[in-house]
Amino acid sequence: MAAANGDACRSVGGVPRPTNPMVTPLLTDLYQFTMAYAYWKAGKHLDRAVFDLYFRKNPFGGEFTIFGGLEECIRFIANFKFTEEEIKFLRSVMPACEDDFFEYLRSIDCSDVEVYAIPEGYAVFPKVPLMRIEGPVAFSHTSRLCCLPQVVQLLETPFLSLVNYASLVTTNAARHRLVAGKSKNLLEFGLRRAQGPDGGISASRYCYMGGFDATSNVAAGRLFGIPIRGTHSHAFVSSFMGLDEITDKTLTSSDGSNTCEDFISLVQNWLIRIQDSSSLHGTFGETSQSELAAFTSYALAFPNSFLALVDTYDVMRSGVPNFCAVALALNDMGYKAVGIRLDSGDLAYLSVEARKFFHAVEKEFVVVGFGKTSITASNDLNEETIDALNKQGHEVDAFGIGTYLVTCYAQAALGCVFKLVEINKQPRIKLSEDVMKVSIPCKKKCYRLYGKEGYPLVDIMTGEDEPGPKIGERLLCRHPFNESKRAYVVPQHVEELLKCYWPGNSSNSREELPSIHEIRTRCIHHLDRMRPDHMRRLNPTPYKVSVSAKLYDFIHFLWLNEAPVGELQ
Amino acid sequence: MAAANGDACRSVGGVPRPTNPMVTPLLTDLYQFTMAYAYWKAGKHLDRAVFDLYFRKNPFGGEFTIFGGLEECIRFIANFKFTEEEIKFLRSVMPACEDDFFEYLRSIDCSDVEVYAIPEGYAVFPKVPLMRIEGPVAFSHTSRLCCLPQVVQLLETPFLSLVNYASLVTTNAARHRLVAGKSKNLLEFGLRRAQGPDGGISASRYCYMGGFDATSNVAAGRLFGIPIRGTHSHAFVSSFMGLDEITDKTLTSSDGSNTCEDFISLVQNWLIRIQDSSSLHGTFGETSQSELAAFTSYALAFPNSFLALVDTYDVMRSGVPNFCAVALALNDMGYKAVGIRLDSGDLAYLSVEARKFFHAVEKEFVVVGFGKTSITASNDLNEETIDALNKQGHEVDAFGIGTYLVTCYAQAALGCVFKLVEINKQPRIKLSEDVMKVSIPCKKKCYRLYGKEGYPLVDIMTGEDEPGPKIGERLLCRHPFNESKRAYVVPQHVEELLKCYWPGNSSNSREELPSIHEIRTRCIHHLDRMRPDHMRRLNPTPYKVSVSAKLYDFIHFLWLNEAPVGELQ
Repeated sequence: MAAANGDACRSVGGVPRPTNPMVTPLLTDLYQFTMAYAYWKAGKHLDRAVFDLYFRKNPFGGEFTIFGGLEECIRFIANFKFTEEEIKFLRSVMPACEDDFFEYLRSIDCSDVEVYAIPEGYAVFPKVPLMRIEGPVAFSHTSRLCCLPQVVQLLETPFLSLVNYASLVTTNAARHRLVAGKSKNLLEFGLRRAQGPDGGISASRYCYMGGFDATSNVAAGRLFGIPIRGTHSHAFVSSFMGLDEITDKTLTSSDGSNTCEDFISLVQNWLIRIQDSSSLHGTFGETSQSELAAFTSYALAFPNSFLALVDTYDVMRSGVPNFCAVALALNDMGYKAVGIRLDSGDLAYLSVEARKFFHAVEKEFVVVGFGKTSITASNDLNEETIDALNKQGHEVDAFGIGTYLVTCYAQAALGCVFKLVEINKQPRIKLSEDVMKVSIPCKKKCYRLYGKEGYPLVDIMTGEDEPGPKIGERLLCRHPFNESKRAYVVPQHVEELLKCYWPGNSSNSREELPSIHEIRTRCIHHLDRMRPDHMRRLNPTPYKVSVSAKLYDFIHFLWLNEAPVGELQ
Repeated sequence: MAAANGDACRSVGGVPRPTNPMVTPLLTDLYQFTMAYAYWKAGKHLDRAVFDLYFRKNPFGGEFTIFGGLEECIRFIANFKFTEEEIKFLRSVMPACEDDFFEYLRSIDCSDVEVYAIPEGYAVFPKVPLMRIEGPVAFSHTSRLCCLPQVVQLLETPFLSLVNYASLVTTNAARHRLVAGKSKNLLEFGLRRAQGPDGGISASRYCYMGGFDATSNVAAGRLFGIPIRGTHSHAFVSSFMGLDEITDKTLTSSDGSNTCEDFISLVQNWLIRIQDSSSLHGTFGETSQSELAAFTSYALAFPNSFLALVDTYDVMRSGVPNFCAVALALNDMGYKAVGIRLDSGDLAYLSVEARKFFHAVEKEFVVVGFGKTSITASNDLNEETIDALNKQGHEVDAFGIGTYLVTCYAQAALGCVFKLVEINKQPRIKLSEDVMKVSIPCKKKCYRLYGKEGYPLVDIMTGEDEPGPKIGERLLCRHPFNESKRAYVVPQHVEELLKCYWPGNSSNSREELPSIHEIRTRCIHHLDRMRPDHMRRLNPTPYKVSVSAKLYDFIHFLWLNEAPVGELQ
């Protein structure tokens, strides 16, 4: 595998541009600009605005989410700058706005913005900010151009667009990994059904991050250094009429010591031996010759990695015997066939039958290990179907998953939001008749507290100036909105969750952006570390998210203060 | 609105590059390359391979689909060429392949490929090819490099990736238009919840194509010349503390004849008059001053297009009266406020109450037309909720729709497939135990037949060499797989559906790629022209798709010929 493109263009000091060149400061909702203008017009010289990016509910009926998309957000702000052409376009869209405003837009970048975030690949939970974005005052060359909170406001839509789907599909991948088990190979095959080309590329990236082993998507493999897998399609099989179409029949042995001049005859002989064998006798009759031709042709092209799609005609009466004939011929030449792929029918039953056949071949022809030939299954797989296969019993080694994985069919969107929590040092709360939608005010710190057994017990949010939780010290954790839900915790380990990824003008050091492989490892590790009852598919236990007693009191003081008192009429 | 970027770079002879720079020949599944290599290794010198791109089932429980994505496919093939870097990467992924194969890849383009397609924006139906892709032999500089079907095979994944989501979301938009009715304004607000940045940009484009009026997405507006809309968010409202934050209070009248030095006082006076008015008396008490400040500030910035989000605090007790105060003050200065947006709560009830309030204001203060002030609704809208609003009765003029629209939440993927139907002039059929999945073989022509009342009656597929249907001539249309389903039709108008969009080396002329606005008009026209029972939400009548008697016989001859005969054991 060549070095990942993404890594190659990463330099020590700088941060590369967003992976998708379409991610520019214009990739946002118009109202971000109209609001920016209204702020600017109002002459609101704000000291500091703090926004939290978070979600309210875990997807897919589960109790966890994996955070994805952070690196792209950092790439976005690191390169945030309007081009002249973009300014010109904005001017045409907002013709009533004063020229100075466009001068202001021309001048801004994100050098003064601070971004704190939970590391990508972490398990994350509702209401806890994934990112905290803060825009301090920037004094530009004229006093009119001095308020930067607009810049922070301008980040809302791009950040949401970069985080929402990334986190959703990473989570979906992780869920597929959990149900498939650690020993299975998981292959992402979704490009053709993904939501747009970039949907496909993002899907491949984040599925790998969430624990998949490889993708079929060549462009994603190139961009991110993800292993790429693929064999052939039904069309390849049906494009062959017969063995006489193959003109070059020679195959040199694996060690180069000899050449088989007529590999086709070798395959045909093996097919006859399989047909004549006592243990396999009667399980099949004539196999498809066009299929045999396709397999032979593919094996001649890829003797080291022969994997055949066996369901074009009939899996057990044609595909599997044909595969075995080619695989045994390859074995004669010192090559080990990889396996078969099943893309239709009763995958549990067929995988079991194919496995029996492989074992019978191993026994009959004394080919050690043939019984373990790999079986890949595909065809509209998802969490439910894999779970059903598990319950039924199957012999599948690898799953190729497409549509349901990449489109997140079971829930096509994660509802991340970007809410103002403080402005001018004044905490702000967003009220709603739906308690779920009430925001948690204040610039906050967030901690994950671990218990004796090493599991994370609870996430806790505190005010910025509160002392952090301490190992071994008893601490009251309160549900942010339900006064009766509270618990004392004595943490054995405390992890501060929000780390500095973009220090702005502050002197804080910036966290490195790890490679996709490191994030994947982190994600797998995180899932391992969670208490299993949070992770199970049916009725998982919610992971606890809490606030400090002090923050609890403040939230409710602010809430009562701001909420209108109803009048029953 | 500036000229669309997409149109600007369109030249007469050439076809511009794909909109998304990430759409390259590597945006495909690895197996397309491994198959290409196996074909090449087998020395299969094929005359001609024909593939059909079609879907098997209409999405969203409906009986129609709108075809989208054609222009991007044509852009893709027009610019299909591997770069040296891409070749180098492929070599690293397939190290076992011979050098000559990469020479071959280096040499290919799509100049010899023919693409026939149904025009973008047409209503389309299951099994009828949306596109027919044909790859003839290309003789390159060495005889080894002479088989092009691989190129056609290489188009499978990119074409599916460009058509699947495009058609799905166009159809979703069209369905939202049908349920909302023609008189409503439909605004696409989905960028932040879309599946990746390009998912968002594609969504905006194809929602407009499917009948939406505008988008919030600035980048899409710029790329495609789509009208852009937007106002402000809850965060804008809650970022204001009070009216004293507004420093510049002056507003010049619409005609420039006079300037109000203290627009804030004007607003405050109007608020008192509304509060004191007999007809509005008692409906509200104190309104939120931070909300009033936000509205006033926004009106000062955009006096010509003042639209206020009125649900941050309380719609009827704060938002609507505050809006009216600002709107009446604007009215004094010769400006007409646009309206309000409701983003939570009981949208039907609130829109009716707000309308009553507007009418009362019109009557009380004699402001002609104020009762018709526009009401926009947003907040997790979809087909079902709009249908429910319609049934309940509402006063909404415009719908802002996001998540459910752009992610196609109700069905997140359209299952377009790309199937081989002919090779070397030999028709190919893909068999399956599921009749739905059996492909219709042969290179085909497709016609839409119209009846006396102007409605399309049936689509019919025929063999390439069959004479086409004739106006006034009785014709037998047969269901492709159900022998008892057949009907005689006397078409009043016959439309050949597959038109030449990429003539390859043939002398056929190439259809122009129309502008997005033309496609949108075509789509709206098409939906109008369909018989209403095909389009209704509940239990729509399936539109008939048929084959000629001759093609029917041939399909079944081929099917019997190729299908294995089962053996019951």
